[in-house]
Amino acid sequence: MFDRDLYLATQRQRVESALDGWLPAEADEPTLLHRAMRYAVFTGGKRLRPILSMAAAAACGAKEERGLRCGCAVEVLHTYTLIHDDLPCMDDDSERRGQPTVHIAFGESTAVLAGDALQALAFEWLTMVTELSRWSVADLVRELAVAAGSHGVVGGQVADLDLGTAAPTADQIAFIHLHKTADLFRAALRMGAMAANATPEQVEALTRYAVQLGLAFQITDDLLDAPIAGSAPTEATCLSIYTPAEARQRVTQLIADAHNALMGMDNSGVRPLAAIADFIPLRGH
Amino acid sequence: MFDRDLYLATQRQRVESALDGWLPAEADEPTLLHRAMRYAVFTGGKRLRPILSMAAAAACGAKEERGLRCGCAVEVLHTYTLIHDDLPCMDDDSERRGQPTVHIAFGESTAVLAGDALQALAFEWLTMVTELSRWSVADLVRELAVAAGSHGVVGGQVADLDLGTAAPTADQIAFIHLHKTADLFRAALRMGAMAANATPEQVEALTRYAVQLGLAFQITDDLLDAPIAGSAPTEATCLSIYTPAEARQRVTQLIADAHNALMGMDNSGVRPLAAIADFIPLRGH
Repeated sequence: MFDRDLYLATQRQRVESALDGWLPAEADEPTLLHRAMRYAVFTGGKRLRPILSMAAAAACGAKEERGLRCGCAVEVLHTYTLIHDDLPCMDDDSERRGQPTVHIAFGESTAVLAGDALQALAFEWLTMVTELSRWSVADLVRELAVAAGSHGVVGGQVADLDLGTAAPTADQIAFIHLHKTADLFRAALRMGAMAANATPEQVEALTRYAVQLGLAFQITDDLLDAPIAGSAPTEATCLSIYTPAEARQRVTQLIADAHNALMGMDNSGVRPLAAIADFIPLRGH
Repeated sequence: MFDRDLYLATQRQRVESALDGWLPAEADEPTLLHRAMRYAVFTGGKRLRPILSMAAAAACGAKEERGLRCGCAVEVLHTYTLIHDDLPCMDDDSERRGQPTVHIAFGESTAVLAGDALQALAFEWLTMVTELSRWSVADLVRELAVAAGSHGVVGGQVADLDLGTAAPTADQIAFIHLHKTADLFRAALRMGAMAANATPEQVEALTRYAVQLGLAFQITDDLLDAPIAGSAPTEATCLSIYTPAEARQRVTQLIADAHNALMGMDNSGVRPLAAIADFIPLRGH
């Protein structure tokens, strides 16, 4: 019997230790910047993206540790996007997970720069992935750079901010969910597989899994955001085009598709990925 | 006889064409973001960093084109740092080279995001450097990531903003000049050499040249900024620790040291680098 909660807790602890060991120390100059970077990274996230990278490596028959470094790269890149999204000129959020956001705690200029430095750090970490045979560091860097850039996460955020006050169309919602959320899930899974020297077929299967999972994750997020009175509106919530019941049905379908994507891969190796897929509709914030 | 002005004009035109061909088209979605990215990149810069990458490749016996892609990566990374430095929460500049800064022309959120996307693009471009034998894309990415990160450009900017109103010490000025300016010169020269499959000795010589040149460049910048009445104060000008005459003497010494660093390399190959060194104290804004 696979114990999903124990698995997620164990993997999360592994990620926390790795991030703590790999991030620049607070005592390193410039100390204010490094404190801000660490503050942003250690805010109680579930570490789903690095856990997915490790699970992808395991699903391809390698040790899960092979996915840890690129998974942590995705995590610090994701962290930088949250810091910048929270800025006064963006969503202007003063709290994240019950804590002051980085610009509230450290000032706006330090928040911008901590984000900038975390993006650079993500790419630096990818150069530390070793023992690659079928894929190269260049493949990993391209994967993350495209997911992070103007056709990826940043493009999704621009489209989100660009919505204005008119009700978004289904196409706009799909574009934003795909790029703001699914692109980094995709990079996390694909890079974990590449770091495990996966076959192109394995990478392809995990890509399909990743996109379904990312979209399901974002819809679940929208459902979680919806009923909280007084919370900031989610800019591009799918609940402007679906009823909650329709949204839940869509999640169910996406999770089924994610499971289908794993068919044909080795059964025992994909068990964590299957368990994570089932966890997505159940998760809290 | 080496015609420096013709050389610089020709190389600059090559860089402009490459950037124009490689940057995402304005018509690409999201168009606002891509227009902002192009606006920021095409503001009449001298393209010194990519010219240095090409000159480094030539100095190592390769075709100068081999340094073009990584040089352009440094250029768009440099551009992103200028966009973010100009933001209201940083230096709050409304003009750069006589044009409205990106946040004035496109709004603050688009400026932050255009900078973020240009950083990602810089790393994507490094993955397109081919025909490497002695060095790898991983070496290039590490080089740029370290130069760009919390121990490089971003660290220098934090130290600069951190100066406050007290007169800076010589150590503080040296730290800021080294990281805000010299680190990207260093990356431009080293990556151009690596892309040309340079020997470690060649890379080492060009590293010494780069640091002297970068420091001379920044002191010249401080001298150029000084006499303009009503201009914004340079945060960490070396003129708070040197007289103008001392600063000019320091530039002369640094340029001599840069020439010395080139000794032992092939004579005809380093001619452009020698000419660029002599150009630094003469240049305008």
